[in-house]
Amino acid sequence: MTGEPGAREEALVQRVVASFTGASSPRLEELLTSLTRHLHAFVRETRLTEAEWAAAIRFLTRCGEVTDANRQEFILLSDVLGISMQTITVNDAAAGDATEATVVGPFFTEGSPRVPIGGDIAGGAPGRPCWVEGTVTDTGGKPVAGARIEVWEADDDGFYDVQYGDGRVAARAHLFSDENGRYAFWGITPVPYPIPDDGPVGELLAAAGRSPMRASHLHFMVTAPGLRTLVTHIFVRGCEYLDRDSVFGVKESLIKDFAVQPAGAATPDGRVVDGEWTRARFDIVLAVDQVDRCM
Amino acid sequence: MTGEPGAREEALVQRVVASFTGASSPRLEELLTSLTRHLHAFVRETRLTEAEWAAAIRFLTRCGEVTDANRQEFILLSDVLGISMQTITVNDAAAGDATEATVVGPFFTEGSPRVPIGGDIAGGAPGRPCWVEGTVTDTGGKPVAGARIEVWEADDDGFYDVQYGDGRVAARAHLFSDENGRYAFWGITPVPYPIPDDGPVGELLAAAGRSPMRASHLHFMVTAPGLRTLVTHIFVRGCEYLDRDSVFGVKESLIKDFAVQPAGAATPDGRVVDGEWTRARFDIVLAVDQVDRCM
Repeated sequence: MTGEPGAREEALVQRVVASFTGASSPRLEELLTSLTRHLHAFVRETRLTEAEWAAAIRFLTRCGEVTDANRQEFILLSDVLGISMQTITVNDAAAGDATEATVVGPFFTEGSPRVPIGGDIAGGAPGRPCWVEGTVTDTGGKPVAGARIEVWEADDDGFYDVQYGDGRVAARAHLFSDENGRYAFWGITPVPYPIPDDGPVGELLAAAGRSPMRASHLHFMVTAPGLRTLVTHIFVRGCEYLDRDSVFGVKESLIKDFAVQPAGAATPDGRVVDGEWTRARFDIVLAVDQVDRCM
Repeated sequence: MTGEPGAREEALVQRVVASFTGASSPRLEELLTSLTRHLHAFVRETRLTEAEWAAAIRFLTRCGEVTDANRQEFILLSDVLGISMQTITVNDAAAGDATEATVVGPFFTEGSPRVPIGGDIAGGAPGRPCWVEGTVTDTGGKPVAGARIEVWEADDDGFYDVQYGDGRVAARAHLFSDENGRYAFWGITPVPYPIPDDGPVGELLAAAGRSPMRASHLHFMVTAPGLRTLVTHIFVRGCEYLDRDSVFGVKESLIKDFAVQPAGAATPDGRVVDGEWTRARFDIVLAVDQVDRCM
């Protein structure tokens, strides 16, 4: 062996970085160079052992094994390490006074059913009914007509429809804002639930002494031509997990009152509800779209 | 939104790091903390876009899809980013004058056949015969009797046995050093070959403008009680890929002469070889074992 250990380690980093100079785009070279420098620094700082490297390979392999059309362990991994939220944070910084974003999570699916304004997205999912209403405007205060609003949430047992594996579609739908930017729908009142913790990410959380629980929330994805797509949640004020959400997704501006209405209280649309229900308001502000850098 | 973007980003890093304080061991906390800091720094430095994040998730998902018992895309990924080699480098620094290590690669398998000293490991694999001989000693120069020597290599078409998917076992075996630490076997002369490049890692290499070719080599894994397991290769002097090995595995001390012998030249054991053959010498020096840190 020749040279100081530190010098040999740094020389290897340089060789790897130099291998990216022929990349198909400057952006790809930038990403690969930064990723390489940071992963090598991780190995060097921690003096990662070969057994630990092998454990990391096994971990990623197992993440691959449990991932399928209805389960995304790599997103869960990114989520529990705060990487998803950091990505959102660096991009959200550019969005001015628009509604803040949070993690998409692993349970969004294409092809949700459409409901009319005031329709019920529950699709039979168990839960306490919840009336959600609000407006969609741009950052100039102008109402956005025809914004597509995708909503999805877990049921009262803490599961999304896709987790049942039986093809059901429930607690998931999309609707469009009216000519004044208004929208409303019936859903179910969000409850806390654990992220899927029967796989490698769950084992990681257990080893790290962390809870898999997510603060109660309702997912939104809002799209409109010329405006920046918003992926976010609203959280339930008072939920005990707001300060220890397993994916670091909570932002103060996204915590909303889900006001409990007594059994028999008149509903906004005359629907007869059996027992208590809740209502929440969420006014959505979309930023002007920016061109995204692409690999 | 409140606070400067940089402050909000740093606050998120701190929240994630703080979540590891209940980890099951100080080492796990150290590893997760360092990994988190570096991955967040990568996202912040590059201002990673959400589209790029999604591309990374798809990339890892596809790595999982192509990985099975005979194909390990996560090891390939670690290899082409130089992470495998850096892990070996930081650990090899402690091994003194012992033979240098290099990457294990994705094609080692348990349960190889045993051959006697002087036996043929080719098992029918096509290739120019190669006689390999040497000794196993410890760093004090003492011969190591009964060292287990695992060898494996690609055939003349550039494929390992497991890549054929038909259950064949070829160009793969193990043997034991004799009472004087000596060993010898017939194998096949290594040739350059591409790492499997029909998956996501191959696409990454293509986008980075890099060749998938590995410098010609023969794998060794040598184990003996009380001594540090050595995982390494020997490389063929003169191979055109020595300075651009796709996994950064080449070390000067591991480049050996594979001396070409003319057709008809007498073989060490009287074997009759049809045509040219080669011979190489590799004297193996094992370090004293060290206790490995474990997660």
